[in-house]
Amino acid sequence: MSGDYRRVDEGALRDYTAGVLRGTGMTAEGARTAAAVLVCSDARGIESHGVARLPQYVRLIDAGALDPAAGPTIERESATTALVDANNGMGQVAGDFAMRLAIAKARDHDIGVVTARNSNHYGIAGYYAMLALEHDLIGVSLTNSSPLVAPTGGRARMVGTNPIALAVPTGDGRPFVLDMATSTVPLGRLEVYARKGLPLQPGWALDNAGEETLDAEAGMGGALLPLGGVFATGGYKGYGLGVLVDMLTGVLAGGAYGPLIYGLWDAMNPSDLGQFFLALNPAAFGPLDLFHARARDLIARLKGGDRAPDSDEILVAGEKEWRAHEDAGAHGVRLYYSVVDALDELGARFSLERLPRRDE
Amino acid sequence: MSGDYRRVDEGALRDYTAGVLRGTGMTAEGARTAAAVLVCSDARGIESHGVARLPQYVRLIDAGALDPAAGPTIERESATTALVDANNGMGQVAGDFAMRLAIAKARDHDIGVVTARNSNHYGIAGYYAMLALEHDLIGVSLTNSSPLVAPTGGRARMVGTNPIALAVPTGDGRPFVLDMATSTVPLGRLEVYARKGLPLQPGWALDNAGEETLDAEAGMGGALLPLGGVFATGGYKGYGLGVLVDMLTGVLAGGAYGPLIYGLWDAMNPSDLGQFFLALNPAAFGPLDLFHARARDLIARLKGGDRAPDSDEILVAGEKEWRAHEDAGAHGVRLYYSVVDALDELGARFSLERLPRRDE
Repeated sequence: MSGDYRRVDEGALRDYTAGVLRGTGMTAEGARTAAAVLVCSDARGIESHGVARLPQYVRLIDAGALDPAAGPTIERESATTALVDANNGMGQVAGDFAMRLAIAKARDHDIGVVTARNSNHYGIAGYYAMLALEHDLIGVSLTNSSPLVAPTGGRARMVGTNPIALAVPTGDGRPFVLDMATSTVPLGRLEVYARKGLPLQPGWALDNAGEETLDAEAGMGGALLPLGGVFATGGYKGYGLGVLVDMLTGVLAGGAYGPLIYGLWDAMNPSDLGQFFLALNPAAFGPLDLFHARARDLIARLKGGDRAPDSDEILVAGEKEWRAHEDAGAHGVRLYYSVVDALDELGARFSLERLPRRDE
Repeated sequence: MSGDYRRVDEGALRDYTAGVLRGTGMTAEGARTAAAVLVCSDARGIESHGVARLPQYVRLIDAGALDPAAGPTIERESATTALVDANNGMGQVAGDFAMRLAIAKARDHDIGVVTARNSNHYGIAGYYAMLALEHDLIGVSLTNSSPLVAPTGGRARMVGTNPIALAVPTGDGRPFVLDMATSTVPLGRLEVYARKGLPLQPGWALDNAGEETLDAEAGMGGALLPLGGVFATGGYKGYGLGVLVDMLTGVLAGGAYGPLIYGLWDAMNPSDLGQFFLALNPAAFGPLDLFHARARDLIARLKGGDRAPDSDEILVAGEKEWRAHEDAGAHGVRLYYSVVDALDELGARFSLERLPRRDE
């Protein structure tokens, strides 16, 4: 036991999470899928998108804003594309279904693009992109989300933190996995800084009047800045990327978009999020082993570059998460006490056996 | 006549530019294509990628580093994909060819992805993405470029400014056209600031020791920072996007990538750039008119949002360039005197009639 968290076995946490979700009315298969996405996030060290969110999902289901029993259906389909209706079910179930459909199309036709609408928060975007890796495909996943970011020149929350994820297989190397929100930081970062009384960094947030602020409370009452911050530091590019994601998700799929999306955990209304999944076969462009070798070589060259004075190491996208996952495999997934308590409470409600701790 | 530039007719500038390129040994068709890309850039107000570069292209051709007579060839092809070898010809010719091939595939199969290798600097990435618009397709274009950007944690120039371009048709509205480098600013911005003796903004550049600098000369001797600047302001995301572009261009197409790319106007070696072109049919996902309407609605809502105190207007990607293009159509393309002088010199060499000015 160390610090303010416990260690739990990854498989046990998955079973337990699936048990909770099964209790809410999800199918056994759907619950397993959603649990896999949530626990993968914790194992990769992205606690903000993991089982800590489980009470919020349950609250949406209790309120009738999300239908746990709903499964995705294919509304339109061609050899290379499909539109999936998530039917207001769990975003993880729709995302897994839609990405696997894109993968199947890419295996047959070198590319597949599947969009989803009427969806909900689907956890980490990178999970779906990474599903392509075991098929030696490049994976892309995008989702829109409730508005938190001000457009450049604006002061209201109008664009989601709309993440972009890309996974690239590298053969016997670690994959390149980029999974990034298009805001500089997530809203949760401001909450943490407010709690600790720390000043924000430039480029993170605007206050309610639309001025850049270093005050965390003021930022929480205002809006997030897009990646790049204000205009002078390139924020219009991050804003453009956020809208790019909205165009390819809500706009393309026929879901909600931009300021029309309801608040993230608004229990009064369905989210109607839009999502985008692409799989692409690198072997269509040349021998797969050479592609893998080039990708590994690029990563190795970047990592081997001259370091800045304050830098121990040059990382590539996904590397930190990969290490966290290895650590989670060896020592168990890290969960904060408060998260374990919340899980215990949910488990009691659904009559589950207590989640076993590895460190007690 | 006003300021330090002249106005020239867009069509006349295109003919003149094509005349210069024809003189270097390009085919008549290739010269027209390359001229169209260069002049489109000037007309859209992106002078850095327009005819001001013509003397540099000619220098590469004179030195034998770029083959003006080479045309692109298809090396591999499936119904939805192709690999194009640019054969070290002009990047604009390869880009136009590859994007039109992607469009043809998308018209038949809803999606097309074409990569190019052995290519050269192709001008503005947005030009190729925009070729999709007249077919009511979504267009994407990416290119890698010579290393100027330091990876997060590094200090050497290892990643190009690797732009991302996306064009979205909106029916009777103006299209959404994002065309952005994944560095905060281009190297040319530092040159301008050095010339004027102005301090840089944070997040723009590192000095040679790998420390962030506001000194333009020091930045030119160091490296550009990725979009987001240093680590604390999200620079690792811009770095990730730059590598994303390299993975989908040089690595996927089998060209050079990252630090292996030679200097931009290095006349000793072929550039061997990689490029990526995607066309996607929005009508595969639902009625086209509804897609158009949603895209227009998102743009209108963003523009109609509450403004920050120092802001006259909320713009969306491509809007500024669209206005510049309308101005160029009405009043002529703006060219700096120095650029007109350089064009006169090239024209004299290739025995062209003098480029007519609209404002004398």
